[in-house]
Amino acid sequence: MDKVDVGKKILSENEKYAFENIIFLAEQKKLCLNMISSPGSGKTTILARTINGLRGKIRIGVIEGDIQTDIDAERIRATEAPVLQINTEGACHLSATQISEALKKLPVADLDLIFIENVGNLVCPSAFDLGESAKVVVLSVAEGDDKPAKYPAIFAKSKVLLVNKIDLLAGGHVDFDLERAKADARRLNKAIEIFPISAKTGEGMDLWCDWLLGSVQKGIAQQ
Amino acid sequence: MDKVDVGKKILSENEKYAFENIIFLAEQKKLCLNMISSPGSGKTTILARTINGLRGKIRIGVIEGDIQTDIDAERIRATEAPVLQINTEGACHLSATQISEALKKLPVADLDLIFIENVGNLVCPSAFDLGESAKVVVLSVAEGDDKPAKYPAIFAKSKVLLVNKIDLLAGGHVDFDLERAKADARRLNKAIEIFPISAKTGEGMDLWCDWLLGSVQKGIAQQ
Repeated sequence: MDKVDVGKKILSENEKYAFENIIFLAEQKKLCLNMISSPGSGKTTILARTINGLRGKIRIGVIEGDIQTDIDAERIRATEAPVLQINTEGACHLSATQISEALKKLPVADLDLIFIENVGNLVCPSAFDLGESAKVVVLSVAEGDDKPAKYPAIFAKSKVLLVNKIDLLAGGHVDFDLERAKADARRLNKAIEIFPISAKTGEGMDLWCDWLLGSVQKGIAQQ
Repeated sequence: MDKVDVGKKILSENEKYAFENIIFLAEQKKLCLNMISSPGSGKTTILARTINGLRGKIRIGVIEGDIQTDIDAERIRATEAPVLQINTEGACHLSATQISEALKKLPVADLDLIFIENVGNLVCPSAFDLGESAKVVVLSVAEGDDKPAKYPAIFAKSKVLLVNKIDLLAGGHVDFDLERAKADARRLNKAIEIFPISAKTGEGMDLWCDWLLGSVQKGIAQQ
């Protein structure tokens, strides 16, 4: 058995559970977004602010993926949203099997939208579908505008790109050409929705929250 | 063959080449540092500034690992240092086999120090030894001070931690407790050398360059 066969076998095991998750979410009519980024791009801060921004409008639950610790889950719990922690114990991505288990434990019937916060890694999670409705990639301006070109897979596969920490642009504290990043992302993925935001100051969060509200109301496939 | 066996087999193939690289580097009396971080922590900017700072003192060569593109290699070439590009074509880490090939192509005899810039990924590269003399982990303050706690493996295994982009601390543009990050890294790795730097402004780069100079002169094992 060579390495390629092994890789295929692990991926196809994942695909089987991903397909089960797709069916489950479709039957339950729930939207599920798989949020992927490097460590420290601001996924948890975005989620907490999104949950607070949509309070009373959308019921949100979160599956938190981390290698170790429950630091992020604690931050989500502070918003009072239901949260389920998965520790991968060293593994570099969440698997569809883990999500299948998590969906059984979350109060899915009481939710409109489930966010999966994947392990901080811009590479591996892009190769493992979890049965999500769509992927959301987060890029912080502190990471540089060349990231869509250098890490194309996740930008090609995502429905939404959140360009976070734009508060750092105003003072010229980081070198980041927003138009270059947008153009490179659109070259990989013509239909990608791009929201420049600052989860710290709240700038741009209203457009992102409106998009989520529309997606829950209409179903993401209709967008 | 279950997943654990498969993982072990791939790792042991890597270990075989890593051992060959260790022998080769020891025979040639060359220092080789494997630089690991998330995408956008500033590895390439640090390398370019390090090469320029040590010009005339240490002869540096670079092995550039990227998933795609040769953007980083071009930036290193501008310093006139010898550089060898490896494109992993989607893979999330460099392998010892790739480094073995690269070491045959670089003018190793003319160099004192070889940097390996690994694929931007704080997780997977920590599991694949390349036969390097030591690992250097880079953490940008924009990523947050909780990263040593959340991604412990690479902090536990590294000889050096470079805390980059400290220029963002002065104006309070990011929330990052340097003492917390240091304490968490030292809890995982008592002997880790920590250099707060800004590759953009040059702050702290002299201490890092002095450490490199000492390491090349004395051999890293004697430090």
